[in-house]
Amino acid sequence: MIIERNPNERLDDLGINQLKILQNPDLFCFGMDAVLLSAFVNVRKNEKVMDLCTGNGIVPILLSAKSQAKEIVGIEIQESSADLARRSVLINQLSDKITILQEDINHIKKIYSANSFEVVTCNPPYMIADHGLKNPDSAKAIARHELLCTFSQICQSASWLLKEGGSFFIVHRPFRLVELCATLTANQLEPKRMRFVHPFQDSEPNMVLIEARKGSKSRVRIEAPCVVYESENVYTKEIRELYQSEPGSV
Amino acid sequence: MIIERNPNERLDDLGINQLKILQNPDLFCFGMDAVLLSAFVNVRKNEKVMDLCTGNGIVPILLSAKSQAKEIVGIEIQESSADLARRSVLINQLSDKITILQEDINHIKKIYSANSFEVVTCNPPYMIADHGLKNPDSAKAIARHELLCTFSQICQSASWLLKEGGSFFIVHRPFRLVELCATLTANQLEPKRMRFVHPFQDSEPNMVLIEARKGSKSRVRIEAPCVVYESENVYTKEIRELYQSEPGSV
Repeated sequence: MIIERNPNERLDDLGINQLKILQNPDLFCFGMDAVLLSAFVNVRKNEKVMDLCTGNGIVPILLSAKSQAKEIVGIEIQESSADLARRSVLINQLSDKITILQEDINHIKKIYSANSFEVVTCNPPYMIADHGLKNPDSAKAIARHELLCTFSQICQSASWLLKEGGSFFIVHRPFRLVELCATLTANQLEPKRMRFVHPFQDSEPNMVLIEARKGSKSRVRIEAPCVVYESENVYTKEIRELYQSEPGSV
Repeated sequence: MIIERNPNERLDDLGINQLKILQNPDLFCFGMDAVLLSAFVNVRKNEKVMDLCTGNGIVPILLSAKSQAKEIVGIEIQESSADLARRSVLINQLSDKITILQEDINHIKKIYSANSFEVVTCNPPYMIADHGLKNPDSAKAIARHELLCTFSQICQSASWLLKEGGSFFIVHRPFRLVELCATLTANQLEPKRMRFVHPFQDSEPNMVLIEARKGSKSRVRIEAPCVVYESENVYTKEIRELYQSEPGSV
């Protein structure tokens, strides 16, 4: 099987189960946030998983390696990214497990019935509206800023899709924590587990991982900090084990 | 001046500015939470400070040492604790700076006019209602459990007392974080600064320090973790500097 590859695209080795991913630096390449989110997610055998704002499909592909999910669906609004994701699924021969939909998450109620997934994941745009943007139409801007969907809309979709007791996993920026919790709970998604990611042991966190459960009561467990570097350019043991080997261009 | 001391009471040296505090182990002795809260609080020169649920007055006494507050008021509902606090104020010759009121915080609107303080602090009861309590009438139970005031009532009082832009500083348990943020924002107190306290570097936090500002917009800064021990029974440098010398009975 020959999968088309366009100029500018590169095929990166994920260092896990010989998985690969197509990336285009003109669009949006996955970062450590997607890797940490996937590691934070728990999927039980035969559960159905939905990844909102899937981009180039990195989260579904990583989850396919660590879970025995029945089905993983990735939804992405941008045609160029959805196309990359679809071809990465083919390259990894994961078409029986992963489906990529090019669709607006705000149309989710027309596509899926309520309470149809056990797990929803999302690595959403972090930045509010077009604040500080020079080029609001670019693919990168859409991936980073809440231009085509807000966090509130993401939560509405997740809450629609999830079964009672199902889990919604996100990665986001700590400066929005209070607002994130308010929006989650307003959508019956109660934060139950939280982990802050710190570049160094003594630095402020630059990411927060949250698991919210649909219809649960208020009580959250804050986990031990996740620290990325033990010294300049040297990953901690936890991060080294996560990557197994460094993802590199192949 | 001779300050009366009852049986069971001990006079502890705070290790800061030769300050001392009367404690009675039958009531509720201050812990590291009060010390960390005081260190987390910022008071500008000539500001007025209110400490809700002041217990034996530890927070006002510590704040008197680190700030140039114009006035510090401590409110405590339990007569036995308020009495200890008053005598500690006398022992430290701080009567010109610190006032102790034995009063229910739910009566605060009758005592103080709205918007009359720049800073409000509180080391509140952590536990919900009488959950798991054997002796709900004891002084310790009242200090630890929300029997005589809830977190919501504390926030209502703080919001009443604070000027616009004034800060409310609390220490609490991380498992209640989501509910704390919701209750704070429901009372126009927006969390702006947050710090988790971890017994060890790789353990879950057992305390959270929060600064909320009245009438502020939603954006929070999560600070670097506060770690208490670097190894078994050995404080980290930060904690050692906080205590200067170990508080001990004198």
